[in-house]
Amino acid sequence: MGTIRVISGAAVQKLFPLPLAMEAVETAYLQKHTGQGGVWPMVFHEFDPGHADLDIKSGHLEAEGIFGLKLVSWFGANPEQKLPALYGTSLICDLATGTPKAVLNAGPVTDLRTGAAGAIGAKYLARPDSRSLLMVGCGALSAYLAAATLLALPHLQQVTLVNPRHPAKAAQKLAAWEEKVKALLHDAGAHTTAAFSAAEDVEQAVGEADVILTATPARQPLLRREWVRPGTHISCMGADMDGKQELDPRILAHARVFGDDAGQCLRVGECQLAHAAGLLEALTGEMGAVIAGELPGRISDEDITVFDSTGIALQDLSSAAVILRRAEAQGEGHVVEL
Amino acid sequence: MGTIRVISGAAVQKLFPLPLAMEAVETAYLQKHTGQGGVWPMVFHEFDPGHADLDIKSGHLEAEGIFGLKLVSWFGANPEQKLPALYGTSLICDLATGTPKAVLNAGPVTDLRTGAAGAIGAKYLARPDSRSLLMVGCGALSAYLAAATLLALPHLQQVTLVNPRHPAKAAQKLAAWEEKVKALLHDAGAHTTAAFSAAEDVEQAVGEADVILTATPARQPLLRREWVRPGTHISCMGADMDGKQELDPRILAHARVFGDDAGQCLRVGECQLAHAAGLLEALTGEMGAVIAGELPGRISDEDITVFDSTGIALQDLSSAAVILRRAEAQGEGHVVEL
Repeated sequence: MGTIRVISGAAVQKLFPLPLAMEAVETAYLQKHTGQGGVWPMVFHEFDPGHADLDIKSGHLEAEGIFGLKLVSWFGANPEQKLPALYGTSLICDLATGTPKAVLNAGPVTDLRTGAAGAIGAKYLARPDSRSLLMVGCGALSAYLAAATLLALPHLQQVTLVNPRHPAKAAQKLAAWEEKVKALLHDAGAHTTAAFSAAEDVEQAVGEADVILTATPARQPLLRREWVRPGTHISCMGADMDGKQELDPRILAHARVFGDDAGQCLRVGECQLAHAAGLLEALTGEMGAVIAGELPGRISDEDITVFDSTGIALQDLSSAAVILRRAEAQGEGHVVEL
Repeated sequence: MGTIRVISGAAVQKLFPLPLAMEAVETAYLQKHTGQGGVWPMVFHEFDPGHADLDIKSGHLEAEGIFGLKLVSWFGANPEQKLPALYGTSLICDLATGTPKAVLNAGPVTDLRTGAAGAIGAKYLARPDSRSLLMVGCGALSAYLAAATLLALPHLQQVTLVNPRHPAKAAQKLAAWEEKVKALLHDAGAHTTAAFSAAEDVEQAVGEADVILTATPARQPLLRREWVRPGTHISCMGADMDGKQELDPRILAHARVFGDDAGQCLRVGECQLAHAAGLLEALTGEMGAVIAGELPGRISDEDITVFDSTGIALQDLSSAAVILRRAEAQGEGHVVEL
């Protein structure tokens, strides 16, 4: 009856360093743009609102010849039992025959592909002479974002960490955080000579940055329009649900704004509230069009550019495809009878 | 990072004989009735209409403490490459924590749980003194339906097979079919002394039957109202999509009609066209209510009763739960790192 390959979380981490995550996310954006990949309606269910829910995201990706799904569950009380709150499991099938090919622990994929997404925004939209990177938010995602952006823009010389809600925490976390960023770069076969520091004054840090990455659960603007100097690029990762927001809507009103999925950005992304307030009629475009060379990203050194990343299922599918291809080539994972 | 149990198609066939399939389907109907189980919106996608499609059905089942999904793909050209046209793969998780528990080849489950469903209709709705069973349709499902019904009504003395589209084929298939039915009974630890025969004249066969099972791809009525004698029970399995139909709508207009999911029966089931024509305002009720003893099935020996089975995701979940429980108890399947 055939076999299926089961790829563990440990194997996924080994098989999928950041440079491959970045390739996978670029492929996903491009395939969305060319219409060769597609997503199907998301299933979402709350077992206990605010405490336990799940979603099932699915779709197909022509470039990789696969279709599949990712089931993600979140049970907030799990850590009390020493279990992870979040589980992500992908099932991948052959697009030509429907044959199930692999089950994989997609838990580690989310941080990697989201870090990669923020960096791709910077790669295509930041000024080529950008020197200083500001990471707003100290959560699990922040090291992935900073490391991927250092890979994308290797000439960065300064990396600053801020925690807008608890300003003193950035300094406390800095040493461990820098180590994590450098370990991710090491896994990617790279290193950085940039100086790492923490800042307490968000306004000042924003005013000194060329590239800003935001990854917070904020529901009120953290960055004000007056703080951002001309020429800055901002990749916003935090707003992916109704009501979440990190930027002053007036920043969006005067920026070139790109998204991973224009419709989704206006519905649930960073652009939602600016759009609802009439400050932003539409996005400038999608990242896929920029990567394809069909839409200019930054036009002048004075532009403020924004990348609103809401997360699309094709990123997960494209990541799973890369992981599966490498697992097959390297004999990773357990191949068992199905 | 934990483990997951992978249960092959061969193991599923060993772990899930018909009596357990019948228990699983009754549990599903009951949990639907009590509201302890629920299904989430189905994902359906046509890769190439009429040639390749897929669906993802998902939901949760309190009685078994699980939630999960079944991905079914159909690629019509696969047999040319000696591959199965249909693949079914289930992913099952713990309802208390979200932990992934098992992946199983659900291919064999569909025939078993659908055979069980038809038999449950007969068990609760047929006259207790029923002696003759008529199977309308010679497809893959027919042996499962007949065997399960023989388990549910062990006093049946006559089993007749008809093929409405190609009447002569029933006689050609009879010997192999009887062998398959008896093998399924043997796997279930049972046997039958009923006489098996084939018939060419559908009208006459219908007029002599106490219990009728239909499982065909018909889009025009196969059974006319005038042919069906009072007291007959009919389990209709064929109509599960827009436009499919096996019964003369006038049969439904004068019968006690039960379904697995009343809304779905009126939308896509056997009841669809009778309902659209104004001949059937509503179903008498759902099977879960009958099994729970809250709604009478047959009221008199003269009633014609109909069970319209459209298939619900809880049947698959309940089946997967039984298979998983037995696999754990017997050490079946491969437990691998996830």
